Amino acid sequence: MSHNTTAQNLIIKRYDRQRLTGHAGKVIWFTGLSGSGKSTLANALEVALHAQEIHTYLLDGDNVRRGLNQDLGFSDQDRMENIRRVAEVARLMLDAGLVVMTAFISPFTRDRDMARTVIGSENFLEVYVDTPLEVCEKRDVKGLYKLARSGKILQMTGLDSPYEAPLAADFIAQTHLLPLDEIIQNLLQALSPTLSTQSAVQEQGSK
Amino acid sequence: MSHNTTAQNLIIKRYDRQRLTGHAGKVIWFTGLSGSGKSTLANALEVALHAQEIHTYLLDGDNVRRGLNQDLGFSDQDRMENIRRVAEVARLMLDAGLVVMTAFISPFTRDRDMARTVIGSENFLEVYVDTPLEVCEKRDVKGLYKLARSGKILQMTGLDSPYEAPLAADFIAQTHLLPLDEIIQNLLQALSPTLSTQSAVQEQGSK
Repeated sequence: MSHNTTAQNLIIKRYDRQRLTGHAGKVIWFTGLSGSGKSTLANALEVALHAQEIHTYLLDGDNVRRGLNQDLGFSDQDRMENIRRVAEVARLMLDAGLVVMTAFISPFTRDRDMARTVIGSENFLEVYVDTPLEVCEKRDVKGLYKLARSGKILQMTGLDSPYEAPLAADFIAQTHLLPLDEIIQNLLQALSPTLSTQSAVQEQGSK
Repeated sequence: MSHNTTAQNLIIKRYDRQRLTGHAGKVIWFTGLSGSGKSTLANALEVALHAQEIHTYLLDGDNVRRGLNQDLGFSDQDRMENIRRVAEVARLMLDAGLVVMTAFISPFTRDRDMARTVIGSENFLEVYVDTPLEVCEKRDVKGLYKLARSGKILQMTGLDSPYEAPLAADFIAQTHLLPLDEIIQNLLQALSPTLSTQSAVQEQGSK
């Protein structure tokens, strides 16, 4: 039997926090291969939003894998749990009124769908960073593809671990075809209407 | 070998976010028995801070146990993992510029010390809600003590699971002796100097 059977009423709600920030919360979920440009895009988007005085946070391997998820590896099961926790933390930060960017490979469709369900479809923008494997491997920013090709790391997404490309992403970024600035401008155009306080007011019913 | 061997440089940092909110971040860690008044105090403090346009969030059993930590039970090991994850999420929210309240029994000294270490002592305010067991059991808001006394739930803190009282809490709240408003006023007095942007500027070096 659970020790937490009753719901406490939290008095300050998402709507109150959004009124304070002046904008709605959102989760922008970047998915793509290692080296596709997820972190670069997420960082650039955060800079652009921050310049508009929008309250943001960026969850990525650096601040999550080294802390909250330091107990997890790269097996299918651990990748799933990694994404589950990221989705739950993003949901809490959304509730806190923030615009949250997440930059994780998140290779499995079922995990991204789970994230969308946890966070709420109306709060969720899936950005597929659609950079071909050849380009990612050529960039090899972290040297991981080289290590994987020489057998020094296993379960590398795109090589010996699958990447299931989104079939209906909300936004597709092709970093090998368009300059970063142009992608960010397009992303901002897609995002901005959903960040208005008008949108926040409509969500008054939610926690 | 880890897949994340290099650090991405996150461009927008805690200091930037604090400049946007106009105040420093903080984690206010409430600890005490079930029914001691942790959630009540944390909610009242959040209301008071929100009225001062301070950006806040409250982590408690309701929004954490049902989501992020839904895979955890109440064994010693699971309680430890529960607190570890709460500490890591609070650290991320602190980094996001928020003033975070946590309301968990957090019965073990080593876990609270771990939280302080993860979050950073300079960001951490431990509030011991020092309500005697007899008072908590008499209140029995959730009916848990009654269930525990009749053997229907096990590992109830204060009965068959230990509570290690803090020996050097930053603030002690005695809800059986002082009215709520007075405790909150005292807490605000203790907190306010640490929330100034001057304090934020001094923390420029941290991420």
